[in-house]
Amino acid sequence: MARFAFTVEFDGRPFMGWQRQAHGPSVQQAIEDAIHAVTGERAILHAAGRTDAGVHGLAMRAHADVEKPLAPFRLMEAINAKLRPHPVAILACEEVAPDWHARFSCLGRAYIYRIANRRAPLTLESGLAWRVIQPLDADAMHDAAQILVGQHDFTTFRSAHCQAASPLKSLAMLDVERQGDRIAIRAEARSFLHHQVRSMVGCLAMVGMGRWSAEDLRNALEARDRARLGLNAPPDGLYFVRADYSSAVVTS
Amino acid sequence: MARFAFTVEFDGRPFMGWQRQAHGPSVQQAIEDAIHAVTGERAILHAAGRTDAGVHGLAMRAHADVEKPLAPFRLMEAINAKLRPHPVAILACEEVAPDWHARFSCLGRAYIYRIANRRAPLTLESGLAWRVIQPLDADAMHDAAQILVGQHDFTTFRSAHCQAASPLKSLAMLDVERQGDRIAIRAEARSFLHHQVRSMVGCLAMVGMGRWSAEDLRNALEARDRARLGLNAPPDGLYFVRADYSSAVVTS
Repeated sequence: MARFAFTVEFDGRPFMGWQRQAHGPSVQQAIEDAIHAVTGERAILHAAGRTDAGVHGLAMRAHADVEKPLAPFRLMEAINAKLRPHPVAILACEEVAPDWHARFSCLGRAYIYRIANRRAPLTLESGLAWRVIQPLDADAMHDAAQILVGQHDFTTFRSAHCQAASPLKSLAMLDVERQGDRIAIRAEARSFLHHQVRSMVGCLAMVGMGRWSAEDLRNALEARDRARLGLNAPPDGLYFVRADYSSAVVTS
Repeated sequence: MARFAFTVEFDGRPFMGWQRQAHGPSVQQAIEDAIHAVTGERAILHAAGRTDAGVHGLAMRAHADVEKPLAPFRLMEAINAKLRPHPVAILACEEVAPDWHARFSCLGRAYIYRIANRRAPLTLESGLAWRVIQPLDADAMHDAAQILVGQHDFTTFRSAHCQAASPLKSLAMLDVERQGDRIAIRAEARSFLHHQVRSMVGCLAMVGMGRWSAEDLRNALEARDRARLGLNAPPDGLYFVRADYSSAVVTS
């Protein structure tokens, strides 16, 4: 038996989310089924993050234990062949130590949220960005975002379905940058609460529209009250982009 | 009656191409039908270029004559509302002089061709880039591309169905640039032959793979023989990105 770490890219549009669910297709199920088709084994896939329906992944990390003796490259190629026609691909595969865990060994996660700040409906990017019609002041959003950086009780920015033991999280980075009519928001932390990035983005959009001041954002954070959330951004614009690990635990 | 110039973005995947066709959906038909739904008129749309099936547009220019008195902004908003659920959107609309013509007034066209140079199948970009598995030498491609710049007989790079009177074209720019595993090829000319960009990209890929030398490309050009074409790149990666006009002819 060997433990394999995968780097996974996926288009979240056709899925109910990362995690296997009884009532619809998931990224986890697509990959587990592909592993079964390749190995005949019912391996369980563990991921660095469990993204919601419609959220995308550019480099999700996950691992599974496989009995069949296969070189990482051959395993990756075989899984990719079996994944068709799902919009899911293994970008990289390596054998890791038996105690390496995609979720529990993960030291940091990074997301990007993409906004298309324009009137026209999206065409090529339909489902791949959040279209916001009102002009957004990205500089004001970036400045206000710094209020959220650091360790806080993020209860206001947490889904009612969040299963985390504590609402205390330490946000390492929240950067807002405009390029033309595109706004990219980068969020980095050791871990996030359920819906935290989308909730933060929604409130930053309130600031960008001029409906909230930076002080309103601070008050919403300090209220520690979900009812004070300004707006929850849709999943369309959210991408899981990176998981960080101590490189020492990887064996190959 | 007024003449309106439109800037159009579209996802080419579901269409048989820009031009109205009897046997399948086209971008032209989608917009003409939307104009009819808004005005009750059967306006004819003229475009700067007629893209093939699967080719995309970031800023195609087109015009139509409309009898119903409507401000450009209102017309654009109404057409966009009627275009749903087609992945086609009007990004800008302006009234132009009655002798302004999207095709005949056009002084230059620009395309971008996107290659994903990687092994893994495409997910988010399926149909939006050409996946090339073999490692490509983008510098060698760029250097070879300069052989094609200037005025030449492009018979080798011309579809058998091309309706242009002459195979002589003057290529103003053909730049190849790599960013990570992405290669972007920018092509600019007053006008192009049918399949010219895809044919040039396919032959540059032959150079990038090391299967052709720059000299092979030069020989293919000078042969003026379609049979000497190395490879025709798929439509997936091709985007019409700009049409240039003398600004003097625009009235508003």
